[in-house]
Amino acid sequence: MDCCVIPLRHGGLSLVQTTDFFYPLVEDPYMMGRIACANVLSDLYAMGITECDNMLMLLSVSQKMNEKDRERVMPLMIRGFRDAAEEGGTSVTGGQTVINPWIIVGGVASVVCQPNEFIMPDGAVPGDVLVLTKPLGTQVAVNAHQWLDQPERWNKIKLVVTKEEVKEAYQEAMFSMATLNRTAASLMHKFQAHAATDVTGFGLLGHANNLAAQQQNEVAFVIHNLPIIAKMAAISKACGNLFNLIQGTSAETSGGLLVCLPREQAAKFCSEMKSQTSGAGGQGMMGGAWIIGIVEKGDRHARIIDKPRIIEVPPRGSQAANQDNNSTSPALSPNLS
Amino acid sequence: MDCCVIPLRHGGLSLVQTTDFFYPLVEDPYMMGRIACANVLSDLYAMGITECDNMLMLLSVSQKMNEKDRERVMPLMIRGFRDAAEEGGTSVTGGQTVINPWIIVGGVASVVCQPNEFIMPDGAVPGDVLVLTKPLGTQVAVNAHQWLDQPERWNKIKLVVTKEEVKEAYQEAMFSMATLNRTAASLMHKFQAHAATDVTGFGLLGHANNLAAQQQNEVAFVIHNLPIIAKMAAISKACGNLFNLIQGTSAETSGGLLVCLPREQAAKFCSEMKSQTSGAGGQGMMGGAWIIGIVEKGDRHARIIDKPRIIEVPPRGSQAANQDNNSTSPALSPNLS
Repeated sequence: MDCCVIPLRHGGLSLVQTTDFFYPLVEDPYMMGRIACANVLSDLYAMGITECDNMLMLLSVSQKMNEKDRERVMPLMIRGFRDAAEEGGTSVTGGQTVINPWIIVGGVASVVCQPNEFIMPDGAVPGDVLVLTKPLGTQVAVNAHQWLDQPERWNKIKLVVTKEEVKEAYQEAMFSMATLNRTAASLMHKFQAHAATDVTGFGLLGHANNLAAQQQNEVAFVIHNLPIIAKMAAISKACGNLFNLIQGTSAETSGGLLVCLPREQAAKFCSEMKSQTSGAGGQGMMGGAWIIGIVEKGDRHARIIDKPRIIEVPPRGSQAANQDNNSTSPALSPNLS
Repeated sequence: MDCCVIPLRHGGLSLVQTTDFFYPLVEDPYMMGRIACANVLSDLYAMGITECDNMLMLLSVSQKMNEKDRERVMPLMIRGFRDAAEEGGTSVTGGQTVINPWIIVGGVASVVCQPNEFIMPDGAVPGDVLVLTKPLGTQVAVNAHQWLDQPERWNKIKLVVTKEEVKEAYQEAMFSMATLNRTAASLMHKFQAHAATDVTGFGLLGHANNLAAQQQNEVAFVIHNLPIIAKMAAISKACGNLFNLIQGTSAETSGGLLVCLPREQAAKFCSEMKSQTSGAGGQGMMGGAWIIGIVEKGDRHARIIDKPRIIEVPPRGSQAANQDNNSTSPALSPNLS
């Protein structure tokens, strides 16, 4: 499970908490703080929990930074973390900071819940539909962006992508990672989700496998569609399947929720995700949702079909993004019907 | 405050939590795990909280360790942490591990409490007595032990201490740091403590100052006695007051609780600490308590008197340790009466 759920001594309540910390992967310290916070909270959201009672921040300051850089970078990172916590309706009231060779940023999210506030991730049934709420490809985008300055690397991918496209994909990845999965958590209740997890270090397939393994029923998750930040599939292929993006095991940071929904609710979930997240326009409020597969009877594993459909997700703000590219479009669901 | 206290949405309950992580300072990985856990829990104990609902473990594995060392060291450290958690009546059900240049070990402790389960650390009144529940000098002991292999350093202190004494002091420091402050937390309720904090990185005086600053009443903390692991004061002096041990600012790791008690309760608190902690004999159950000062009217600061009495605390198991050296001995309290 993404969180630990501890029954308390008091009135049927449970303490649900989670921790995560890692190393910076984008250049913008403010956005890095937001991403770290979104990544911590995501484990609560994956259980359909929309509230958080408290956050702690875990930081290490790099001993290799000079005083000036430190004073410029760390307050921005802390502010990003705090701003994202505030967007999640919570606040940071404790933590610990140490000196370390590398910068570390992370935190702890805790909430005390009644049983109806969280959805145990074990109720998938055959016939359910799998929905993913953020596009894949953040790791590829972050790496490709670094390769802009590494001619040897860049030469391998320059035939399939332009520098402009890489920069746009990097921006898209950064904003996607900084987006809270809170809207998705809230809609899990409205549309009676049966189970969910968030997609992070093990990639889509890794987390789908973990989720399948926990199910009460004998089910299998079959993934037909892969929504991927535009051009990242091409980059992955051009590098000889580096990252295994199409195979589903490319690591994501602060990825979307993978949600099992009753068949009749999935399209409505996606539609409402789209309308709730595109209207506001705040950078933390963007998102989408794509139907990516189905739940069958099976042996509690997940698999991606041979030759899955790649859904190219254009960067927000680009022309293509203004066309209807979400799962509510009939073009995307033939495999599933 | 040592913890954050978050009022919850449910029935007058509060979420109290704390986090700490740091780098290894003793050579024994198992003991290091115990120390890290004791250090995390200590913040709860300082608020008189004796229960903990959940712990998370925060770890980083050093990239510089080879596979073999890693497989030998990390499981021991984890086991030490878990064993100390179990001794504290709690368990570790989550956490995060990363790779890092340095080893990191730490954790998060969380508990959901009713208001009568914790003691807000702001109720000291003039006339109260200050009690300390572990001897000072852990930092000096750990460093002196490293100097056994550094002739240049060793030459500076060899006139005041033997190698055997340094080894004993190191053992004493290690067991002291690995001792939970849980008994002290429990006795805080029995003897109506008015406030407490745990003594860690800022040293006795640093934490005493922090505690004094938070008091509702206009009080000052005046420290007369310094219980110090035997010979550590002499080492500190021989090094030109390196560490500022006598000045009260030498860092401690997983130090004791500094407790403000009503005058008529302090001796009973010390006596019961001694009987509860010396009888069991388990390595995590040792401890003591010393009356170290008084609370006067003042401007919310702490100070150590000129020429404080140094109480040499002999290593457990040594001959001297079998004599009565605790605060219940009349010889130690003339400054205070």
